[in-house]
Order: sequence, then C-alpha cells, then structure tokens
Amino acid sequence: MKIGIDLGGTNLRAAIIEDEVRLRDHSKEPVGEPRDPTTIVARCAELVERLSAGESATVGIGLAAMLRGHSGMVANSPHLRWLDIPFGELLAQRLGSRFKVGVYNDVNAIVYGEYMCGSARGFRNVLGVYVGTGIGGGMIVNGELVEGASNCAGEIGHTKVRWDDAAAPCACGKRGCVEAYVGGSYVQRRILEELSAGARSSAVTLAGGIENVNAGHVDMAAADGDEWALGLWQELAPLLAVTLGNAMAVLNPERLVLGGGVLGRCPTLYAMTDAALMVVGNQPTLEACTIAQAELGDDAGIIGAAHLASRDVSIVAV
Amino acid sequence: MKIGIDLGGTNLRAAIIEDEVRLRDHSKEPVGEPRDPTTIVARCAELVERLSAGESATVGIGLAAMLRGHSGMVANSPHLRWLDIPFGELLAQRLGSRFKVGVYNDVNAIVYGEYMCGSARGFRNVLGVYVGTGIGGGMIVNGELVEGASNCAGEIGHTKVRWDDAAAPCACGKRGCVEAYVGGSYVQRRILEELSAGARSSAVTLAGGIENVNAGHVDMAAADGDEWALGLWQELAPLLAVTLGNAMAVLNPERLVLGGGVLGRCPTLYAMTDAALMVVGNQPTLEACTIAQAELGDDAGIIGAAHLASRDVSIVAV
Repeated sequence: MKIGIDLGGTNLRAAIIEDEVRLRDHSKEPVGEPRDPTTIVARCAELVERLSAGESATVGIGLAAMLRGHSGMVANSPHLRWLDIPFGELLAQRLGSRFKVGVYNDVNAIVYGEYMCGSARGFRNVLGVYVGTGIGGGMIVNGELVEGASNCAGEIGHTKVRWDDAAAPCACGKRGCVEAYVGGSYVQRRILEELSAGARSSAVTLAGGIENVNAGHVDMAAADGDEWALGLWQELAPLLAVTLGNAMAVLNPERLVLGGGVLGRCPTLYAMTDAALMVVGNQPTLEACTIAQAELGDDAGIIGAAHLASRDVSIVAV
Repeated sequence: MKIGIDLGGTNLRAAIIEDEVRLRDHSKEPVGEPRDPTTIVARCAELVERLSAGESATVGIGLAAMLRGHSGMVANSPHLRWLDIPFGELLAQRLGSRFKVGVYNDVNAIVYGEYMCGSARGFRNVLGVYVGTGIGGGMIVNGELVEGASNCAGEIGHTKVRWDDAAAPCACGKRGCVEAYVGGSYVQRRILEELSAGARSSAVTLAGGIENVNAGHVDMAAADGDEWALGLWQELAPLLAVTLGNAMAVLNPERLVLGGGVLGRCPTLYAMTDAALMVVGNQPTLEACTIAQAELGDDAGIIGAAHLASRDVSIVAV
C-alpha cells in the first residue's frame, strides 16, 4: 500500500495511491494550530494509521520546507515555524516498523508526480519550475529525482538575476534572487507599492480598487496594452526566462514543466516569458526541450511523494 | 581492456587504462591536417588496433565537440571543422564487433575522470567547471554522468550573465554568455584591445610589450594592485561567481571542481571568484559543497572516457 501526504502551510492532505495515479480515501484538513512538531507528527501518524487500516504501507510526505540530508530533517520551514526538526525520524519512530517513511521537499514531490503520472510522463530528463508565492524547482535526471548532496537541489528561486548593490533583498538573506523579483509575494508587494505611489493602470478598475489588485489583474491589463502593467511584465519576464534558460543550459532537459499560481493566473506573463526564453536560451538546449504546463494540480505532491517512497528514495532509517 | 582517446583541436592522444588510473602505451600526436572525418576515423582506428594488439577492448573517446544524441553524432566541432558527422558510428563500423565504442564531450569525460580517480573521487554529486579558451562544464548526479536529453548538458559557458542590448556577442550566436566575458579567448582579445587603446598597466612591463600580455600577466599585475588589472578582474570574477553559484543552487553538488588554463594561470582571479561566490551563492548550497582544483591534468579526459565506455554510457549501437 502506498500512502501520500502533502503537508503545506495551509492544508494537511493524505490519500492512498492506487493504479499509479488514483487517490483513494483522500482527506484534507487545515493544518491550523498548534503546529508544533509533536502535534503534527501525531496527526500525520493517525492519518496513516487510519488509511492503512492495519496493513503495512509505504508513506511518502511532501513538505513545504528546506530539508537537510536524506532522513527527513527539516532545516527550516517558515510555514510550520520549524527549525532543525528531525521530522522524518520522529514520524518513523511513532509509526513503527510496519511503515516505510520518506520525506521530500514539496516541489520535488510535485515534479516527481508530474514525471510519473502527469505532463512529464515518459521523459527521463525533466526540469519543473513553479512560480507561486515563491519560486521552486525540481529535476529528474537519468530518470531519477535530483536531491543533491544535502537535499537542497532545485533551489532555482535563489539563482541570482542581479548582483549589484541595488539588487532586491530576498527572504533567504541574500540579494538579487529571481524569487525576490518574480515570486508571487514580491510581485504582489510591488504592485501595491507602485499603484499606491501613483502609478496609473487599468488593473485598478478591473480589480475594483488598488487594494484588490493582484497579479491576475495586472496580467489582464497587460493583455489590454496597459502601459504600466506591460512595463512591469517586460521587466519580470526576461528575469524568469533567463533563470529558466540558464538552468536548461546546465541540465539539457527534454521537458520543462511550468506551474504554480502566478503562472497559472497570468497567461500574458507566461507568453512573454516563453518568448524571452527563445531569445536568451541556449539554442541546442531549446531544440531538445518541449514545454508543458503542470497537469496534476494539487494532487501532484501526494502522488509524487508516494511514488518516491515506494522507490526507496531517501527512506528514513529507524 | 579499456582504451581512452582524447581528440582535441591540437593533439590526438590515446592510452590503455590500467588499475583505474594508470596510462599504459600512452601516445600523443598532432591532429594536423587533413582532419576530415574519414582520415581521423582511420587514424583513431589504427591507434586502437595497435593498442589492443588483437584483444577485444572498450574504447571511450572524449571529443572537443558539441554532440547530439547518444551515438557519437558530432553536431558541431569548430576545432575539427566538422558539422553533423556520425563519428561514433563511423568509428564503430570501422573497428568492428571486437570493440565497444562510446563518444563523449571532452569536458564530460574530464569531469568523469576527476570523479572516478581525481579531485572528485568519492563524491556522488559533482559540478566541474573548466575555464580555458572557452568555458565548459560537466556534472555527476547520483553517481552518474549527466548527458541530458540531447547530450548537451553542462553548457554552463552559455548561461547568460547579461541580457540587455549591449550584452557581448558569443560565438554560439547568442549574447551575454559568461564565456563571452570570462572565456580565455574573449579575455585575451579584451586585454589587447584595452591596452592598445591606451590603458596603462604593469602587465605590459611584466610581459615585455602589449602584444605579449596574457591573462597570467594581468593576474600578476592585479596581485600587485595594478588598477586596470584589478578593475578587469573585479568585473569578471563576479560574473564567473554568479554562474557557479547559480548552477550550484540548481544542482546542490558536494564537490565543485575548477580547472582549465585561465583559472590555472590566474590565482588572483581564482581567489576573487571564490570570494564573490561566498557572497552570491545560495547559503545552504555553499555549506554542502567543497571546492577543489582539478588534479588529473591532461590525462583526465582519456581516463574519464575509458571509464564511461566501460560503464556502458552512451555506447554506439552497430
């Protein structure tokens, strides 16, 4: 039996995965409070015990966190407010020997899900990039997930697109990361700042007030030729395109999967990024790669985590 | 028996590899002229036949070329002046069934050599970057060479560090590639241009004339505090550092191997790049990675190619 869990900042979801891609007994509940490790470990364990109903099972968990090493050590999860929590070991100990537990970065699990069952199925070299609140990446190389030396691979959101003294500060502590320009929370902040400072845009009318404007409204305004919105997208699209093109030049993927809330809601930004990528990308790499939007939506992480654990990737030793 | 061949723009070298790393019956001859595919295939085949002395053997060839696919198709080799030459198939057919033939990008073979027997031995996630005439890269992920979808992985020299209209043109046909700033032939041209245009530098005295100045002289001048030399290195070191840091953020290697003529002759540039990398690199990635200079020198490619072929990587079907 394969069980997948998606532990995000908002929801805790779990399901049994059948026939590779079908979710059975799917449950979804708010993470809520308290969200200390002891509470969350207990809740995950109870979910697994209920789903497994006495059988043994493989449990894969995708987590919105930066991991360290390959035993489910959470180095940092701003969403859960955890620092240096051996989540994998705690959960594996609590569950006992009937269960095999693997813990994965959420974007890695999502990309693996798309690789096994979604828009990257059948491709052995894949780059997945998700532009949502932040920017995350995951890679498949030679048919295997790339976790890297310390399980931090795919930090494409923290590749630098500026490195002068005026480069934008990023929550990671450095400057000039692409996430600090194109990540959803940064874009949102900038939109409100510029409009509050007097920028004129049809996005305000579309949204019914400055305070309601989000990236989707800006995208619609840009599609209508709004000067301010187009200017913003013309600045951001090349930054995202360079990031994608540079990662592609290194990895030479066969499939680039794009997803995440910002790209999903912003078809104009997506199209402009795609056009800029054709200019800044390395030509042989572009020729070898097709681009697709993510297919599995919210289920990708659950599916991917379950498959990774069932393939013995980064299983927690107990 | 394992035979390695290194076919560069200048020399054709071959040897039997024994005890993993020892070269026996090493031969080195100029590539010379003519260098058409028929001539070169015949010369490689004769070398292999002489070395193998009637035994069957595995033959790995590292080639200064851009490959396409995994059967030794040379898409482009400016050094050999080849375009779309099925070198692997021609050589395998010429040699016959007694031999197993694999063809590799030269930098991939070099990095694999360092991984098997050199400064990256024992590390399962490796990034190797060579700054010579151009800039080339190679990667090991999960213990395996990364060739990518079309065997173009590791084109780190063609990642972009500028994307404005004034970005430097690169021989690849695009603009703003790091190679067009830090690659040896570009650096050399720029040195001569700036000095000929009147820049004053102690490098000229060190070299005994403007026309003799190379990157090594500029590096010595920079170490002595020469203003022009330091200014040039202060511009170039961050570009190389950003390139390394961004690739590391994606790959999370355990070992970064640096090599190539420019870095070898320029310890000041090397130190400035290293210092800049600590600033622009992604922190968790930096913490997981040690940096080492390449160890195997000119033998790395022969050794790496032989090992790749003996591990059945990209063997030419005949």
